[in-house]
Formats: sequence, C-alpha cells, structure tokens
Amino acid sequence: MRRIRFSVAYDGTDFHGWQIQPNLPTIQGTLENIFSQIESASVKVEGSGRTDAGVHARAQVAAVSLTNPIPPDNLRRAVNRLLPPSIRIFDVAEVHSSFHPRFDALAKTYEYRIYRPEVCDPFQFRYVHHHPYPLDLEAMQELAAGLVGEHDFTAFAASDPSDAEGRSKVRSIFSSAIEESGPLWIYRVRGNGFLKHMVRNIVGYLIEGGKGNHPVAGGPTVPAKGLTLWSVEYGSVTLKP
Amino acid sequence: MRRIRFSVAYDGTDFHGWQIQPNLPTIQGTLENIFSQIESASVKVEGSGRTDAGVHARAQVAAVSLTNPIPPDNLRRAVNRLLPPSIRIFDVAEVHSSFHPRFDALAKTYEYRIYRPEVCDPFQFRYVHHHPYPLDLEAMQELAAGLVGEHDFTAFAASDPSDAEGRSKVRSIFSSAIEESGPLWIYRVRGNGFLKHMVRNIVGYLIEGGKGNHPVAGGPTVPAKGLTLWSVEYGSVTLKP
Repeated sequence: MRRIRFSVAYDGTDFHGWQIQPNLPTIQGTLENIFSQIESASVKVEGSGRTDAGVHARAQVAAVSLTNPIPPDNLRRAVNRLLPPSIRIFDVAEVHSSFHPRFDALAKTYEYRIYRPEVCDPFQFRYVHHHPYPLDLEAMQELAAGLVGEHDFTAFAASDPSDAEGRSKVRSIFSSAIEESGPLWIYRVRGNGFLKHMVRNIVGYLIEGGKGNHPVAGGPTVPAKGLTLWSVEYGSVTLKP
Repeated sequence: MRRIRFSVAYDGTDFHGWQIQPNLPTIQGTLENIFSQIESASVKVEGSGRTDAGVHARAQVAAVSLTNPIPPDNLRRAVNRLLPPSIRIFDVAEVHSSFHPRFDALAKTYEYRIYRPEVCDPFQFRYVHHHPYPLDLEAMQELAAGLVGEHDFTAFAASDPSDAEGRSKVRSIFSSAIEESGPLWIYRVRGNGFLKHMVRNIVGYLIEGGKGNHPVAGGPTVPAKGLTLWSVEYGSVTLKP
C-alpha cells in the first residue's frame, strides 16, 4: 500500500463538518466516496482532526492508503474533477507508510474573522462573524496575549463524547493575537492542539472582554462560520496555504 | 414623494439577474418586495442597468420613490434586515426628485476575474472564471488597451430583444486594462455604457488573443460568474464600493 498525504481546502458552509456521518454531507465522507471510486475498494481518509459543521479550512491535512499506482499529480486532478468546487485538494505527495495526519501533527493554526462595519459584505458573510457593535481592541489584544503558554483549557472546551475519560486538557498555545485588517478583526492562534469548540470559546471570551465585561472562560461560543483551520505543521515540514 | 438613491452589493450566484421576472428570484424583485412592504404600497426599484443571471455587483446604484418619511439610515437598516445576506444596500440618501439611476449615469466600471492557478480556490469559485491554461498576458494587455476610445460595439453585443431597433451601438471606453493580482488576472473596464454581454464578449476576445489565436469580436462569451459591476458614476459624485 502507498501512503498519500494531501492538503484540503473547503468552504464548510454546506457540510455537516469533517467527520463522516450517515446520510449527511461531510468533508470526510465526500473524500472517502471519491478515493473509494478511484481505488475500486473502500478507502479510509484520516484527517489531522475534525472540524465542526460550518467551519472552513485553508489547509486541512489528510492521508489515505492506496494500492492504485496513479502518480500524485494525476491523483490530485482526478479527485478534484470528482469533488464539488467547494472542496479542493492540493500538495498531494507520497509519504512514509507510518505517516499519520493526527498523531504526527506538531502544531495547528486557526483563524477567526470578525466583520466590524455595520453593513456586512455579501461576498464575505459565509466566512465571518458579523459583530458591528463597540469593542475595545486593545483589551482583546491583552486577553489574547495572556493565553500564550501551557494551560489546562478545560473551561474553554465543550464536552466531547468521543474523548476518553480523564484525557489531559492541557494544551500549549504558541501564539495568540488579534489584529485589525480592513473591515475585519482577525484572531489567529497557533498551538499544539485544540479541544472541541476551544477556539470559538476563546473568541467568545475575547469579545466579552472587548465589551468591557469581566471575561470568563466558558462564556458564549461564537458562530462556526467565522472559523477557518489555517494550517497544520509536521516535523520539519510546514504545510501552508 | 421622496426620491431615495442607494447602492446595492450582491452575490449574483443564486439570482436570475437584476431584472424582475415572475416566479424567479431576482435582485430587483427581491428589493421591490421589501420596499413595497415598508411603503405598504407597490414600489418600483429602478437600477442603473440590468445585470445578467450570475453576475455580481459591488455598487450597483438604484432609486425608489417613497411617501414613507423614514430617515435614510433607518431605511438602510430596515431593508438590510429583510434582505437575504447575499444582498446589502448602503449609501442610502435622499436626492432630487428628477434623479434617474439609468439616464443620469455617466460611467460604469466592470471587473472580470480570471483565476489562473491549476487548483481553483473553493472560497473564490463563485466569483471567478477558472482558466488555468497558457495565456499571453502581454498580448491580452495590448488588445485591452486597443479598445479605449469611441467605437461601434455591435460585434461585441448579444442581440437584445428589449433594445429599440436602430439604437446606436456606439459606446466610449475610457479605460480598459488587464493586470495580474496574485492568483487572478483582473480585467477592468470603464466606459459610458455597455451593451448586453459586451464585457463578457470582450474578455472572450482577450482570451482568444491570449491563446495566440487571431481574436475576433463575436467569439466565445465567458461565464457570467467572473463578472462584477464595480461602480456607477454620476455627475460630480462618484459612488464607489
């Protein structure tokens, strides 16, 4: 069997998240159908992690094991021809058979987009959280910076039924910052791992602080559509969009 | 009656063009429904011109006549609350009762986006024409520049049943240029008026020239989804996105 790693970008609007579910369109399910057609056998697609319904990705990383000898460039073209235009694969490469996109990931970067002007851009509404109300950017920047380091993020996590009981909720955040970029305020966070809903809970916490409230972990979760999995890093190789 | 001018941005993907049609979603039809609700009477929305099915707008300009005394800012908020998120109005202002968005327009700018890399971005496919094949940019730039000036554009126009027989097909192009911008080649054209399908026929002509073929007006029409009505100019007032 050949081990094939690839990156995948998707507009998550019309999907029920990454993870395969019976009778619902998902990213993993859509990819598995297509790789299985090409392989003429059932193929499992393993991702670096799940993304929730409505969350987007610029460079999710996944892998498949295939017997089909098709060269990576031809495989990329064949898969993209069969995919809907809201999902594209790229950076297709043969890798060592032991490669696992989840267990080998060293860092992930997520981006969360807050759209600030009163009238939301009709070309961006699928990819942003529209919040045109007063917010103190400096207060949010201070709170964001305060998350850098190793912490127990239990209070920022949704309960995850797939999580083994007692598994550590300690994660390291390498960078955490919010910046103004035209009509957007973009929160970008890079860490060694993220719990379920963790980034959306962090952004809810930042917004509470931006309103002048005393921010508390475990407050409101912001909408999925503003969130994008930006990149996943492995060993000395950094995969970027 | 008060005369209200406004700008309107729309993602044309899910609409059958600007012009109202029975039983089909159109931009004009959607706006007329909402203004008629607010006015509690039938309201006609007049635009600077029609856009075809699938064509987008950053700043189409339109006008309505209302008896309702609602201030422009409140009107903008009320209409945007009732519109789908793929249509937004902005720059709402009361103007002289004689203002007509079509007859008073002095210039329009359109943008056409060609996406060049082999793998099309899933966040942009609705707004671009994906053409990853070899094209000679310099040849296209020369052809684009050659269109500046006053010409009879009959050969670049689709037959338009709503056009009065014998109406002039002479139009003035003030600027016409194609530039590389990251993964996009963007054709931008500003003129005093455009015939049906004219910009899409011009881009088809530029692409033929870019392929090294002898370009002929009246060749292939490129897809609607790459086209955006960028702005409409009036007198000394320039309305921009």
